[in-house]
Parts: sequence; structure tokens; C-alpha cells
Amino acid sequence: MLKLNEVEIVTIGDELLLGQTVDTNAVTLARELGAIGVSVVRRATVGDVADDIAGAVREALARTGTVITTGGLGPTADDLTRPVLAELFGRTLVRDESVVAHLEALWASRLRGPLPSSNLQQALVPDGAEIVRNPEGTAPGLRLVDAEGRSVTMLPGVPRELRAMLRESLVPWFAARAGDRVLRTRAVRTTGIAESALAEKLGASKRVVAGLPLAYLPGIDGVDLRVTARDMSLDDATRALDDAERTIREAVGAYAYATDRTTMPQVVLELCQARGDTIAVAESCTGGLLGARLTEVPGSSRVVLGGTIAYHNDVKVRDLDVSPDDLATHGAVSEPVALQMARGARARTGATIGIGITGIAGPDGGSDDKPVGTVWIAVDVHGDARAHRAVYIGDRAEIRHRASQAALDHVRRRLIGHGA
Amino acid sequence: MLKLNEVEIVTIGDELLLGQTVDTNAVTLARELGAIGVSVVRRATVGDVADDIAGAVREALARTGTVITTGGLGPTADDLTRPVLAELFGRTLVRDESVVAHLEALWASRLRGPLPSSNLQQALVPDGAEIVRNPEGTAPGLRLVDAEGRSVTMLPGVPRELRAMLRESLVPWFAARAGDRVLRTRAVRTTGIAESALAEKLGASKRVVAGLPLAYLPGIDGVDLRVTARDMSLDDATRALDDAERTIREAVGAYAYATDRTTMPQVVLELCQARGDTIAVAESCTGGLLGARLTEVPGSSRVVLGGTIAYHNDVKVRDLDVSPDDLATHGAVSEPVALQMARGARARTGATIGIGITGIAGPDGGSDDKPVGTVWIAVDVHGDARAHRAVYIGDRAEIRHRASQAALDHVRRRLIGHGA
Repeated sequence: MLKLNEVEIVTIGDELLLGQTVDTNAVTLARELGAIGVSVVRRATVGDVADDIAGAVREALARTGTVITTGGLGPTADDLTRPVLAELFGRTLVRDESVVAHLEALWASRLRGPLPSSNLQQALVPDGAEIVRNPEGTAPGLRLVDAEGRSVTMLPGVPRELRAMLRESLVPWFAARAGDRVLRTRAVRTTGIAESALAEKLGASKRVVAGLPLAYLPGIDGVDLRVTARDMSLDDATRALDDAERTIREAVGAYAYATDRTTMPQVVLELCQARGDTIAVAESCTGGLLGARLTEVPGSSRVVLGGTIAYHNDVKVRDLDVSPDDLATHGAVSEPVALQMARGARARTGATIGIGITGIAGPDGGSDDKPVGTVWIAVDVHGDARAHRAVYIGDRAEIRHRASQAALDHVRRRLIGHGA
Repeated sequence: MLKLNEVEIVTIGDELLLGQTVDTNAVTLARELGAIGVSVVRRATVGDVADDIAGAVREALARTGTVITTGGLGPTADDLTRPVLAELFGRTLVRDESVVAHLEALWASRLRGPLPSSNLQQALVPDGAEIVRNPEGTAPGLRLVDAEGRSVTMLPGVPRELRAMLRESLVPWFAARAGDRVLRTRAVRTTGIAESALAEKLGASKRVVAGLPLAYLPGIDGVDLRVTARDMSLDDATRALDDAERTIREAVGAYAYATDRTTMPQVVLELCQARGDTIAVAESCTGGLLGARLTEVPGSSRVVLGGTIAYHNDVKVRDLDVSPDDLATHGAVSEPVALQMARGARARTGATIGIGITGIAGPDGGSDDKPVGTVWIAVDVHGDARAHRAVYIGDRAEIRHRASQAALDHVRRRLIGHGA
């Protein structure tokens, strides 16, 4: 019997198996479907090989009965999804005029040219297939349903196209079948504290909070504490998740900075906007990463004035008024330099908050007293500047990201009154 | 019969199915194993559910015979990989003293504390399992081999730990079994040209170059053209890939900026270093992203002096000497402002190359004549400043990344003498 709130995903493409591409579509599908109570119960990835595609989809249909495939819908010879699944469902490929019209319109408007004959391939669809409109691209989605109601929905591999089709067509289609039982998760995001220390605060052996299973998800931003409510009514799930979040937040206190997919830059920007604060950055080892993370948030221009990428020491001196003597005496990675960078960022821009970061991101440049990963972070809030030293583990990218995360967390703690 | 140069991967964890985590381990494994001729022929992802883990591994063992699992080796109750696969291979869990010693040493040295009893869980290993040392973390890898030589190698899910174990243990182990036939790929990376236009240059229908299959891989950096040599000797593969690369580069010309995993920032930094050039950036809509991408490269400090994040117009005027009149007349997203930003970046820092980026990253702020995605990029090389306008598609993050990529490509083309 068909489980209407479960789905398997089969992602198709040599580039996925070869590791040329990170499979972000699987993440998008899982999140969007999970939010409407549809659980992705298994995922398979196969190459552009007819037997492997057919095998993976056949197994998934037998196991779960509802399958979504991504990729292999393009106009080229290695795009096998349409013919292979047509055969699996015993359908022939027929030319669909609505798809032809869509392709011609798209070429005329966006791509400003006549339709290449190769792309007419994409108008060949399995007989009786439901067309899933693709507002963003050329390859339409296709859905085949057999007599028992088992279905495979074929989506293109281009993330932007898949996201648009998910919103426009798939979420409504699945929501209509899934009924009123939902799967909901909530993550309390923490940073600056180790998984084991969190476990102590929550009760070392505790794997259940407010009756919901608790998972520790360590990541580059910190450790997310995620509880999951399965197969409940929306009201029950919401109530249980609210209880669990309250319990977790009481246990971890100010280490919790956000919920679910809210990011640290979003949190800091909201705090600043509510208080009328503005931010300027002075970045050495992060080289612009902190500014990039802040300005990635739409509307950040209301808070972020700008800043200085002070990679070379001359820039620290000229643009941020860092003392050459302190650079000579204490080195670029030092408390006085970090403090002067934060103050300089404020002074230059007139921002109410200045952030200075200077450190050793590696792989080279470390020493015994300043190993790779050593970072000084200073935060100047309305003229009160404080500095913090840390040594981060990981590679260059991880050290830089952790430094930017910690810098924003210091700002957050200062603004909510939990600053060191 | 066991195919020694093929492997299936089973990644384990609710967070993967829920879309909380992007499965980068699968990418790492595919790349590293592919380089020594071991093909990942299928990948499955299952949740922390005993039956699903056992089922996926059983199927993969029956199909391919060699399996790598990631995840589920932690100390907590939802870490099921060890007990489930022990049962699948008919083994009992026994305490391994070498693992206990490793855990105690690790806690004493890095984590500075006594070993929590919960972590002793990780010292329970399937009877007869081979221990795969984990130099970076607590969870050791484990390998079980049955009478027919079918094997499963269990690795932890933490990317840094997995990478270290792959280098230290797995690559040598697989290389020893795989024999002298290799799988090698080569990608010629292009940017600033559409997939269809590349197809025209290469011969629209051409899916084979120098006897090797050709794949088009569009991504945020541009379109990578990848050829794959399978089941050849290393010499034959290298020769075929060299021929294919030559043919592709002749066809696409200056659109090709790099090979394989070399990035645009690396290319530009190498060109600059070879010529003794230095770079300063002036970023508005990218907010530091360009600087962050450049300084992500180790050793970039030899070329990158720094720059200005000129998010607010006041910063453009004060720090980059952008004309307030031009801002008023033409707006911040305009040719004169971009040119003045590039010149200002050079003037402030004394760099030989200045880059200015100003645009509308969205989602708001667009207009009829300046839609979201409109970006002006200016590059000043030794006082010769030129500006370029483009309209990029995608969301805010994609527009910002494409703008940074295009800016670096303009620098590259200027330095190799193909600049507009």
C-alpha cells in the first residue's frame, strides 16, 4: 500500500558520482517536502547509465511507490531519464506541442535566438505523461503514474529550475496527497560551545526533549540542536516543538543564537536595526568574508556601511590608523592591533559598531606562541572596544569562517548584554 | 566476481535525508577514489534506521561487493552503523583496547579532560574488524571483510576526519587492490559563455573529444567541459586527456580560464604574481565577496593589498573619491562610479590593479532600465581603467558570485591580452 507521505529521491548524473557537483537539489527537496510532512526516506545517486537509472527507480517504486528523479532531462545524448523511464512504465515517446511552444517562446524571449533542433529532443515525452511546467528553463518536468498509483516525477538538475518547479507544482501536488499528518523539525542553533559541553548542559545522556528525539548537528557555524516531530497533526507538532525549544534554550542560555535556518548575520543585522546601530568592518585574515556574509542578507544596506579589507599592514596603518609601533612590537595578530582596527573602522565610517579581525588562517605563518588558527577579534560598540583571542581548528577556509562567526557572536552578545 | 575498481557509497544520517546537511563527503570520496581509478558506481543515503542501513549495505554488497559507509559511528544512541553492520556480518561487538587508548590520549591532549563514559561506546567494535585510524577525531574507522572478499569500510561523517582517513588509509588500501587501470577526468573551465555557444564552437553534436566522452557541466563559475578516460593505463589516459584538452582549448580560446579544480582567483593571483602586479578591490554590491574569494587562496597576501567595502555611498565618496555629482546624476550603479571605484582602490593602496564592482544584487532595488542583476564592473590596470556592464540571472547570492567571477575574468583577460 502506497505511503503518501513518503518519497524516495533518485539523483541522476555522472557528475554527481564523479564528485564534480555537490548534490544541493537533494537538500532542497528534503527541506521543502519535509515542511509539508513528506519524508524523504531514501536517496540514491546513479550515473548516466540506463540500467542503473532503471534499477534505482524500479527499486524505489517497489519500496516506497513515490519517486522523484533529478537530472538527465537535457537535450543531449547523455540525458537518458526520459527514454529509460518511459520504457520502465511501458510508454512510447511522443512529441508534445505544448512543450514545443514553451521552448520556442523561451528561446525567442530570453535566449534571443531560434530554437536549436537539438532542443526539440526535450519535446519528446512519454505517452500519457503529466507535464510539470518549468518556468525557469527549457527542460519540462514529467510525471508518470501507473495503475497502482505508483509515480515518478522527473525534474531537471539545474537547481534554480528545480526550486521554481518545487514551489510552483510539486509542493502543492504532494501537500494535496500527504493529508494532515506533518513532519516538522526545529533546530536551536548554538555557537562557541562544544558538543560535549552542550550535552552536559542538557544532561549528557539526554536524547529526547519534551518527548521529541534530539540530534546534535555540529557544523562550521556551531552545533545545531534539532528536535523532530513526526506523524503528528500540525497543532500537536507545533506545541511539542515549542516546548522542546523552550527546554533547550533554558539549558544552553546565550549560546543559542537562532532557530532553524536563521543565520548569525541575520540575527546581528536584526539586533542592530532594532537599536539603530550601524556596522563597519576591518578585516585582515578574513579578507572580506565578514562583510560578504553580512551583505549576503537582503536589506543589509540599512545596517552595514562598509569597511576596510586591511590585508597588507600598510593598509592597516593608512586606512585604520593602526600604530606602526604596535605592529612592530606586537605583530599584526595581536590585541592592540585588533582593537585599533575595530576603532579605526568606526572612526572612518561613523558606524556605531566596529569589528576588527586579525589572525593566522594558514596553512603557513604559524609560530609556537601564535599557531595557525590564532585570531584576535575586537568589537567596538559606541566607543567601548573589547578584544578576544581564540585558536580555531580546521583548514584555512574553516578558520576564516569560524573567525567571522565568532566576531558576529561577540557583537550579538554585546548587544543582548551577555558580552565578555 | 568482485570488481576491485568499483565501490558503492552509503551515507548514513537523518540530517542528510532531512536536508540539514549537504553531503560533501560523497564528493570528497568520489574525487579521491576516482583519481586512483576506483569508480563510485552508486550512492545511497539512508536515515538512522537500522533496517534501512542494513538493507542499503546488503544491496550494495550484493551488487558491487565493496562498500564505504559514512556516519553513524558517534558515541550516541542514534549512531547505529557499528551494531547494524556487525549483525549483518554475523559479528559480536567487542571492546578494543587500542581504540580505548586512542580515545584517552585524544581527550587528554586535545580536549583537555577525562574521557566521558559515553565515548567508550566507540571502543566497541565488531569482532575481527580492521581498525582504520582516525588521526583527527574520536570515532575510528572500521572495516569488515567476509569470506568472499566483500567488504564494508565504515567512516565517520565529520568531513575533516573523513578527509584525513581517506588520505592516510583508504587511498593506499584501494590503490593496492585497484591494479593499474585508472579512471581520470579533466575539465577545461570556461566562464562568460553559454553552454549552447560552447556547443557551437565545439560542434553542436560533439559528445566525444579525442575519443573521450565530453560532458558539459554548467555551474556558478561558468561551464566546465569535462572529458573522462576510463579503464586505461595511466600513460594512455594522460595522453588521451592531453589531446582532448588541446582540442577543447583550441575551440573555446580565451573563454577557457583553468583546468580541473583550479579556481579563477588562483589563476588571477598567479598571473599577477608572475608579473609583479598587486590588487586592491572596491566592492559595493559584492560587499567583500571578491576580497574573500581572492584571500581564500593561500599566499594571496603576496598580491592582494586589500581594499574598501564601499556599501554606503558616503564610503564611496570619502574612501574612493567617487564624485557625489556622478552618484547623483548617474546613480551608484553606473559606469562613471565603477570607474572611479577602481581608480580609487588603486590610488588608496598603491596597487597596480584596481577592481570596482557596483550593482543591484536584489531581491529589491531593480528598475526598468536597471533591473535586478545589473552590475557595472571596472578594472584599472596601471592607470588604464575600463568598465563593463552585465545583467546576471539568479538569486542574490548567485548574482554576487557571478559578478565577482566576471570581475576576475576581466582582470585575467586584460593580463593575457584578451581584454575588451
